[in-house]
Amino acid sequence: MSTTNSLDVLIQALRRLPGVGVKSAQRMAFHLLQHDRQGALALSRALEEAVGSVRHCTLCHTFTEAEVCSTCLDPERDATRLCVVETPADQSALERTGAFKGLYFVLMGRLSPLDGIGPQEIGLHKLMERACNGVVQEVILATNFNAEGEATAHVISEALKSRGLHVTRLARGVPVGSELEYVDLGTIAHALVDRR
Amino acid sequence: MSTTNSLDVLIQALRRLPGVGVKSAQRMAFHLLQHDRQGALALSRALEEAVGSVRHCTLCHTFTEAEVCSTCLDPERDATRLCVVETPADQSALERTGAFKGLYFVLMGRLSPLDGIGPQEIGLHKLMERACNGVVQEVILATNFNAEGEATAHVISEALKSRGLHVTRLARGVPVGSELEYVDLGTIAHALVDRR
Ligand SMILES: [Zn+2]
Ligand SMILES: [Zn+2]
Repeated sequence: MSTTNSLDVLIQALRRLPGVGVKSAQRMAFHLLQHDRQGALALSRALEEAVGSVRHCTLCHTFTEAEVCSTCLDPERDATRLCVVETPADQSALERTGAFKGLYFVLMGRLSPLDGIGPQEIGLHKLMERACNGVVQEVILATNFNAEGEATAHVISEALKSRGLHVTRLARGVPVGSELEYVDLGTIAHALVDRR
Repeated sequence: MSTTNSLDVLIQALRRLPGVGVKSAQRMAFHLLQHDRQGALALSRALEEAVGSVRHCTLCHTFTEAEVCSTCLDPERDATRLCVVETPADQSALERTGAFKGLYFVLMGRLSPLDGIGPQEIGLHKLMERACNGVVQEVILATNFNAEGEATAHVISEALKSRGLHVTRLARGVPVGSELEYVDLGTIAHALVDRR
């Protein structure tokens, strides 16, 4: 695919998408130019528009086009509970359960010292301010249950507890609908410890 | 991720890329907006630019920004041999072997009746014209070695032979069931030499 320079530029640009190697980028460029030029233009406009208008909520850090996001502005939400998640997608998953009516703080990442992502990058200082506003009574840590997510939860938990806040963590346990013999042993062990 | 409309629009637009589901699209949008806004703008511009300037070579149908692509214009190429491939990526794989010095015809697809892709869509009529120009002495079929590629080769072969042209197929050194762009270059080179 070396005969057209703007095609090469497009393939290189597509490679900046996470998880897209040179083969995928070629296939994407071919598909768009051969079968979906409308889609290519729609994507071009959507990218420009999103970069121009999407910023972070000043209260919870999630993506928003306004100063404060609609969740933070919702007077129906329980302002005494603050749930800490890694990404907007995690927040969205929790919202879809319908089981949480409080507010959120979105870290927009997780601690990962090897990648240069420290407390500053996940907005720990801002989270402390937010949690210590005198209204929040409980901070629920809903970071992922992998090594980095657990480490992130630990650091945040220590910081918040030092300010006397009540900190909880999503329960670890057996996934609903699963059969015990197929669940990994670590999960079963945690479910035993956290039994209620 | 429901608090910002232009973010939803971006996620939907990313889903038009082949192989990208809603989770991947969310991850891509998150990555671009959180970590690589320069990349997002570069991709936006590359898409617009490519859609505006990339068209098809009037001789071989591959992507080009000019009336005729640089390969077709190259006086060093052997105009008596015409290699038929499915996509520019396949052409690129053949070029990288350095084993073929002739010209190409790029189908920009393959016969797939169930998807409504017939002889018209792969430019069979145009290929016949191109191959019967009085200069071409051999047409080498380098469509993929899977069911649709073989069927495409068969249909093209019958059509060309009915005009008295010498038609060859890449040798079966290429593993059956695989797609050209993923085959190692040495295998492709051998298959070119052993064409029959
Ligand atoms: Zn907010
Ligand atoms: Zn050409």
